[in-house]
Amino acid sequence: MNVLAISGSLRATSINSAFCRAASRLAPEGLLITVFSGLGELPLFNPDLEVDPPHQVLALRAAVGRADALLIASPEYAHGLSGAMKNALDWLVSFEGFVAKPVVVVNTSPRARHAHDSLLEVLKTMSATLLCEPSVTLPLLGSCITEDEIIKSPAVSSQIRYSLDALARCFRETDESGPGFPVGPNDA
Amino acid sequence: MNVLAISGSLRATSINSAFCRAASRLAPEGLLITVFSGLGELPLFNPDLEVDPPHQVLALRAAVGRADALLIASPEYAHGLSGAMKNALDWLVSFEGFVAKPVVVVNTSPRARHAHDSLLEVLKTMSATLLCEPSVTLPLLGSCITEDEIIKSPAVSSQIRYSLDALARCFRETDESGPGFPVGPNDA
Repeated sequence: MNVLAISGSLRATSINSAFCRAASRLAPEGLLITVFSGLGELPLFNPDLEVDPPHQVLALRAAVGRADALLIASPEYAHGLSGAMKNALDWLVSFEGFVAKPVVVVNTSPRARHAHDSLLEVLKTMSATLLCEPSVTLPLLGSCITEDEIIKSPAVSSQIRYSLDALARCFRETDESGPGFPVGPNDA
Repeated sequence: MNVLAISGSLRATSINSAFCRAASRLAPEGLLITVFSGLGELPLFNPDLEVDPPHQVLALRAAVGRADALLIASPEYAHGLSGAMKNALDWLVSFEGFVAKPVVVVNTSPRARHAHDSLLEVLKTMSATLLCEPSVTLPLLGSCITEDEIIKSPAVSSQIRYSLDALARCFRETDESGPGFPVGPNDA
């Protein structure tokens, strides 16, 4: 099972990016998490470019299309979603391969509610399949902000493992009982 | 009095951009509206670049710093603020010249509440001075979507004139009674 992790921050020492990398190391067997690295290369969304989308946009769409699920962690800037994260989502609004895509949203900052709520509203509007049980909140502020610190923290790493196990379970149940998630045209 | 109009859409035929251009033509005497043209050239916000901000960011900040007020019109994408608009605001969060800046928000689509509410929340968090009376909602969908159509429509152009007159009045009252708006360090 392939999971594409997307961090909504471009900062080198971003907590959200550190979480994504830590999650890929903590993934249980059978679950491969790839961290998307092209967010900062995307041009700003312009509907006029949809006729012949830039290659960076095609790369994002191909990565999303290939993934069985997305794992999103994004910062809050001034009580809003980061522009970089929203820009990536804007490019996915008209992409059929996003429809019904299973998405896990991990909030790395329990105090940041506005951006988190906006992100959920946008994903719902884009017809994502939000997976509730794996979507956890991690209190990463303070002394636990690097990839290694996250992995070494028993409290945090166990919560990430819980989230990823729940995600893997969603898919095992799907395998046993037929498609549990609606399947978009590009996922067939 | 200098007003900087910012459209949150990069589409050539954007209603929000058409509104900004129409507003600059309908501006009453003494009020000069310049439409900002550099939104699409901004790099995606990266806090690491704050040490030596890219020239496009410096151009945005200089234009905002020079303006007595901002006039913002922005589309809603998937129940969220456009990534391009939020990205521009992300670059202004740490800019002292934005603090207490008088801002008029015009909603060109009465059905789009999510992005409008998000924009107000972000601007409040950034310590903008939101000007309520000039911040109107214009029902521009349908047959009134180009700059010329907006100007030729008596109903719409009169509402825009009302908004701009109210904005000019805010500043006249400020002149008569001393500063009515908090003034940021770069506005002195």
